[in-house]
Amino acid sequence: MPSLPPAEIGAPFSEIDTPALVIDLDAFERNLDAMAAAVGKLGVRLRPHAKTHKSPVIAAKQIARGAVGMCCQKVGEAEILVAGGVKDVLVSNEVVGTRKLERLAALARHARVSVCADDPAMIEQLALAAERTGSQIEVLVEVDVGARRCGVRPGPAATGLARQIAGSRHLSFGGLQAYHGSAQHLRTPEERRAAIASAANATTETLRFLDEAGFACRTIGGAGTGTFELEGASGIWNELQAGSYIFMDADYAKNVADGARNASPFEHALFVLATVMSTASGERAVVDAGHKALSNDSGFPVVRGRPDLRYHRPSDEHGVLEFDNAASKPAAGDRLTLIPGHCDPTVNLYDWYVGVRGFDTPAARVEALWPIAARGAVT
Amino acid sequence: MPSLPPAEIGAPFSEIDTPALVIDLDAFERNLDAMAAAVGKLGVRLRPHAKTHKSPVIAAKQIARGAVGMCCQKVGEAEILVAGGVKDVLVSNEVVGTRKLERLAALARHARVSVCADDPAMIEQLALAAERTGSQIEVLVEVDVGARRCGVRPGPAATGLARQIAGSRHLSFGGLQAYHGSAQHLRTPEERRAAIASAANATTETLRFLDEAGFACRTIGGAGTGTFELEGASGIWNELQAGSYIFMDADYAKNVADGARNASPFEHALFVLATVMSTASGERAVVDAGHKALSNDSGFPVVRGRPDLRYHRPSDEHGVLEFDNAASKPAAGDRLTLIPGHCDPTVNLYDWYVGVRGFDTPAARVEALWPIAARGAVT
Repeated sequence: MPSLPPAEIGAPFSEIDTPALVIDLDAFERNLDAMAAAVGKLGVRLRPHAKTHKSPVIAAKQIARGAVGMCCQKVGEAEILVAGGVKDVLVSNEVVGTRKLERLAALARHARVSVCADDPAMIEQLALAAERTGSQIEVLVEVDVGARRCGVRPGPAATGLARQIAGSRHLSFGGLQAYHGSAQHLRTPEERRAAIASAANATTETLRFLDEAGFACRTIGGAGTGTFELEGASGIWNELQAGSYIFMDADYAKNVADGARNASPFEHALFVLATVMSTASGERAVVDAGHKALSNDSGFPVVRGRPDLRYHRPSDEHGVLEFDNAASKPAAGDRLTLIPGHCDPTVNLYDWYVGVRGFDTPAARVEALWPIAARGAVT
Repeated sequence: MPSLPPAEIGAPFSEIDTPALVIDLDAFERNLDAMAAAVGKLGVRLRPHAKTHKSPVIAAKQIARGAVGMCCQKVGEAEILVAGGVKDVLVSNEVVGTRKLERLAALARHARVSVCADDPAMIEQLALAAERTGSQIEVLVEVDVGARRCGVRPGPAATGLARQIAGSRHLSFGGLQAYHGSAQHLRTPEERRAAIASAANATTETLRFLDEAGFACRTIGGAGTGTFELEGASGIWNELQAGSYIFMDADYAKNVADGARNASPFEHALFVLATVMSTASGERAVVDAGHKALSNDSGFPVVRGRPDLRYHRPSDEHGVLEFDNAASKPAAGDRLTLIPGHCDPTVNLYDWYVGVRGFDTPAARVEALWPIAARGAVT
């Protein structure tokens, strides 16, 4: 059972119960528009990552602004996106195990489904599942272009897998997945440029072998919010998979922009609303948002508009605020807006988005309650 | 919508889809029995913490073995426990905000409800809510006995709050909440003994003021899995709130036992089942369980029975395994059993427990699917 939503539509901002996952709808819509404009200028396709938001409602808004479809990481996410009306889904990840492959093949009867692969045994099982189901699945071969996670090595290895894919009547070779995950959070523009230049070399080298063997790539996919302008301008990648741009988080805010002219066009649009629940010690303030309300894997949340307050020492349901001086000390009952350290796993902790219109104004009201439909879709 | 369960009842262990949260039912039941025996020997009450399991099914098993009721941290958890049949619930935490206090007061019409407080304004609002609802609520005053989180300072401060509580027709003063959270994971028995001795002094000092003012305490509550034998033997605490003992986790396993004679009677009973999804790099193995399948706030998971494998570099949906030598390298499709670093926030990521009977035997089968009913009950 999902929890009840922490507010009603139409309620003033002050009546949202805490902790709550709130969206500044104006900032969120500006982020959607800014990315649509950016990929238009770059002349590449956008296939935003739904692992960030896990919501067919948000996917629909991205597709309405020109996205060609969605990507996601799990078969369960793909199922929920398709059930929610998305017609084109890439699982930008390897899928292992017959039960999951059967589900993926079944889903491909109801939408355009593609998936990544880096292993002949997985491709063989996928082909069998697609044959049993009578469906067609496009496969991208994943190349490890620097993330040191999944994917074959750059060079000739992709060609053998492309040949195997093309040899199945139920699979089609779609191109390459070339995502450099760890480049997204390199802090300086020089580091990010060097990482994506290296990923570009790895991709080009792999493409040369495919080309020699007669394989064309409809899609070269990859990129995230931290580097998409580099991949988009490279002339190599043609389908970008950024996700976090819709919300931004405290970790992305630590990236240094590539010159003032190229400052990030994206704003923080996702927050955890928290309440100060204890100041009884006289020495500290404790908020009602801990590990179960915020994912602290990429650093602690930042208190919005309050540089004098610092969140630290989280436990399961509490966070402690350090403050500069007595004048800074919040009172019990005070409500604070936290910028999550990492948006994706924080979203996965909640059942509901609370969409707020007029976020920073006295008229701020709840305009939307969107279920986080693929929360917990872990298989 | 909760996700579909990752297995069917009766299925062999090998058919559980991954990642999945699995319980070794035999070990789990031994843990339940061991705690019931331990508190029986200590002669104190047990009110296990449901923030660990978030399940009325498991609560019922604890109550059947003598627990006097449950504690939890959130009003939402209390609502789900009561709806699931629990008749006596302590919210072992401060509750702030009129909306939550109204819910708590309403719940007190349907079960025995108690709550902690450390602030006069909260007690006033709670009394008003209980009056409006026509319910009775017992209140424990929380004292900070070393956790440096919520609670008044030891000494006279609790007496004023007790007087305020006793002055409301709809509230009753129940005693003290004296939980030393940070003592639970002190690694050596000497450190844990010193911390609980200090908490005992703080509690005794507070009790002296209450006694002088004529307030008796029905309950002195506190303790966790790491220290409950110390509180239980102190002659001060009479109601223990341990939670993690039912599952244990990799963090608790790092505590050094207090002599071989007093080794922990509890076993690991909760695991995340994961699959190796990529070995294509030739250099590493990647499993399908990352931040969204495991909470890494208290350290990474340990691979059960495989000291030659070490989990590291988690991302949202992946974890990388380091291995000692080529002979250790797992193959794609291999299934591994991970001991979570921290059980409570890991449980909160899942919709289902998969209960397995005969866990380590070839006959291992799924015997139970229990919904994690209070997962995400964050308010």
